Amino acid sequence: MLTPRSPLLRTNRLTPLIRRLPVFFFLVKWVLLSSLIAIAVGSASAFFLVALDWATNWRESHRWIIALLPLGGLLIGLLYHYAGKSVEAGNNLLLDTIHRPAAIIPFRMAPLVLLGTIGTHLFGGSAGREGTALQMGGSIADQLTRLFRLRPRDRRLVIIAGISAGFGSVFGTPLAGAIFGLEVFLIGRLSYEALLPSCLAAIGADYVTRWWQVGHTQYHIETVPALTLTYALYALVAGAIFGGCAVLFGETTHAIGRFFKTRVAFAPLRPLIGGTLVAAAVWGLGTTRYIGLGVPVIVSAFEQPLAPYDFALKLLFTALTLGAGYKGGEVTPLFFIGATLGNALSYWIPLPTALLAGMGFVAVFAGAANTPLACIVMAMELFGVACGPYVALACVTAYLCSGHRGIYGSQRIGQSKI
Amino acid sequence: MLTPRSPLLRTNRLTPLIRRLPVFFFLVKWVLLSSLIAIAVGSASAFFLVALDWATNWRESHRWIIALLPLGGLLIGLLYHYAGKSVEAGNNLLLDTIHRPAAIIPFRMAPLVLLGTIGTHLFGGSAGREGTALQMGGSIADQLTRLFRLRPRDRRLVIIAGISAGFGSVFGTPLAGAIFGLEVFLIGRLSYEALLPSCLAAIGADYVTRWWQVGHTQYHIETVPALTLTYALYALVAGAIFGGCAVLFGETTHAIGRFFKTRVAFAPLRPLIGGTLVAAAVWGLGTTRYIGLGVPVIVSAFEQPLAPYDFALKLLFTALTLGAGYKGGEVTPLFFIGATLGNALSYWIPLPTALLAGMGFVAVFAGAANTPLACIVMAMELFGVACGPYVALACVTAYLCSGHRGIYGSQRIGQSKI
Repeated sequence: MLTPRSPLLRTNRLTPLIRRLPVFFFLVKWVLLSSLIAIAVGSASAFFLVALDWATNWRESHRWIIALLPLGGLLIGLLYHYAGKSVEAGNNLLLDTIHRPAAIIPFRMAPLVLLGTIGTHLFGGSAGREGTALQMGGSIADQLTRLFRLRPRDRRLVIIAGISAGFGSVFGTPLAGAIFGLEVFLIGRLSYEALLPSCLAAIGADYVTRWWQVGHTQYHIETVPALTLTYALYALVAGAIFGGCAVLFGETTHAIGRFFKTRVAFAPLRPLIGGTLVAAAVWGLGTTRYIGLGVPVIVSAFEQPLAPYDFALKLLFTALTLGAGYKGGEVTPLFFIGATLGNALSYWIPLPTALLAGMGFVAVFAGAANTPLACIVMAMELFGVACGPYVALACVTAYLCSGHRGIYGSQRIGQSKI
Repeated sequence: MLTPRSPLLRTNRLTPLIRRLPVFFFLVKWVLLSSLIAIAVGSASAFFLVALDWATNWRESHRWIIALLPLGGLLIGLLYHYAGKSVEAGNNLLLDTIHRPAAIIPFRMAPLVLLGTIGTHLFGGSAGREGTALQMGGSIADQLTRLFRLRPRDRRLVIIAGISAGFGSVFGTPLAGAIFGLEVFLIGRLSYEALLPSCLAAIGADYVTRWWQVGHTQYHIETVPALTLTYALYALVAGAIFGGCAVLFGETTHAIGRFFKTRVAFAPLRPLIGGTLVAAAVWGLGTTRYIGLGVPVIVSAFEQPLAPYDFALKLLFTALTLGAGYKGGEVTPLFFIGATLGNALSYWIPLPTALLAGMGFVAVFAGAANTPLACIVMAMELFGVACGPYVALACVTAYLCSGHRGIYGSQRIGQSKI
């Protein structure tokens, strides 16, 4: 007979707790691993942001250095040619490793991309910083694989967490970073296996970057009108235009990259030629508006009407810079392109300029990277909650309209978009 | 030779546009379908919220009616026994239909669950409203399947969009509603196929509900301290406790439901018996604090310390009400349970009471419904962006700790949690 104190009943009562032991170990393991990732990647991001700031300021106060952009490009090209063959694929190497774990991602990816990006910005290329953040994050995190002899499945999670940490800490948007890491490697599907590692690593890395006293740009959308049917339709139309712009960006960058690859056999010469063109364009236009990150222009896109062709010029400058082999990434230029395109749309779409700029900021990126949820959450983190429905309509439409080939060639299709 | 005006080149130039025609048709189709869903479901939610408000106020000013709760339960039981057999499975019927489309969900699901829920609240059961919202949303939306002779795939999207619309409009959180619809039917995976329909329907339905001048409760988290390592660990511990509470709620409700099903053969008698127990408990405790939606208590959980056993009593009242066969849903009681449990945790966790209440509000629900992303976004929509990292840590941990059996029996496992 089973009395309340019989061992069988007591076992039974303990069972639910014992069954949860794996969860407990999982939690402890990932708190520890994610903390290590957060400390390393958050610190790397802090250093990177400071260095980037220094490079940008130095360039702007010594503009003659832009004349040396071709030379800088050659140096970056030589660096990757002789020391970086194994990590040249950059973001795509990360995504490939998530899909099909192979050799440990070489640690050199981190210093190389850091150096390459700082060089690109110092000499006046038009590029971003998320590629650097992801590659530093992923390659640093993957070193834990060797250190702790992680199994293939844990290794996937480590790399995803590293990507989340890099993204979250470089942009100061931890939740968007967490979701970006989960969302970026498969189009049309989000898998929760790395939910905890990504959240912990992104929130932690953002914390570490701020702990180093490194701040982030503030963007402001002062007024968000109450949604109406007309406004919603405008948001959809704007989203479709943002999606089209994302396609244009991706295709142009790919086309220029292909052109260089087929015509210039010796890789280090490509940035030399591309850099000459960029430097000539800067000299011809007489402005540094379209090189570097372009943060001041992004900020002013939220504040006042800008030239309607700003987005197109930034698109060309960036496609040329990245297509020629400079380093950095696409995302901040995409923010620029989106925000100025949104700004331009406010000439005929009766929504506040700042709101349209904010919608474009995230929606062109959502279309190009195929990461609509991360972009919606990013907008909420950067601009506040009120813009949510507008941003969601724009991001989702941009995502639908941008096709299945984004800026990351190694993304796989989890589910067709329509 | 190809001149710029030759037909071949012109075709080639048009190809990208022609290739995007399906996206254009997809967009137009879903703008139209989602608008219909939004108008119908948003209006139903508005009516439901007004009726619920009326029922709650009437009960609180005529408390003798609680003595009739057993009788009200019998009536609801008879209603479903004789007119509602086909829709008795409620939320699970919706989820099953998404997984394996079968017969059109009978329209009667909407009026029956509406009537059952209003009755439950009028007579003093402890229940929620999201079940009603989802079932009205899903069944109304599925009528479009017949009207437009939709193919099975579109039908799935219609039902998901209906669920999103119902959730978004009843809680006034359109983006959380959109994500909830995508997230709820598979544990551990989020599929983007219904992204546009869900966003459009949820944002639209929320707009329609507000257009009817029906508002939502405001919750306030005044101070969110800067995250520190200690606070983050506390958030994880709180999340684990919230997850455990979600398991306790689910298991208790299931156990009481099983008990009634095996012991009381004639279904309409179950709420009669359960209602007698609930009414007796109200009389014995001398308070209506634990019946109905409990919104005033939820609000005060953000404002002042409450009794540490509030959550446990609400859990028992709700498990008894729903296990016995009353209608409404689990979510608002889960908000109550979570917010008061968070409030109670503030006795020994050194975080602001309002923040802990807000974390519990969404995290217990995240654990019970297995929808962490919807809950994180919901917290941002309800409480603002600042609480994001705390809420994310709590929701993700609660989700991990709550096992694979939530409140919706027909959820399938897309991917194991750990």
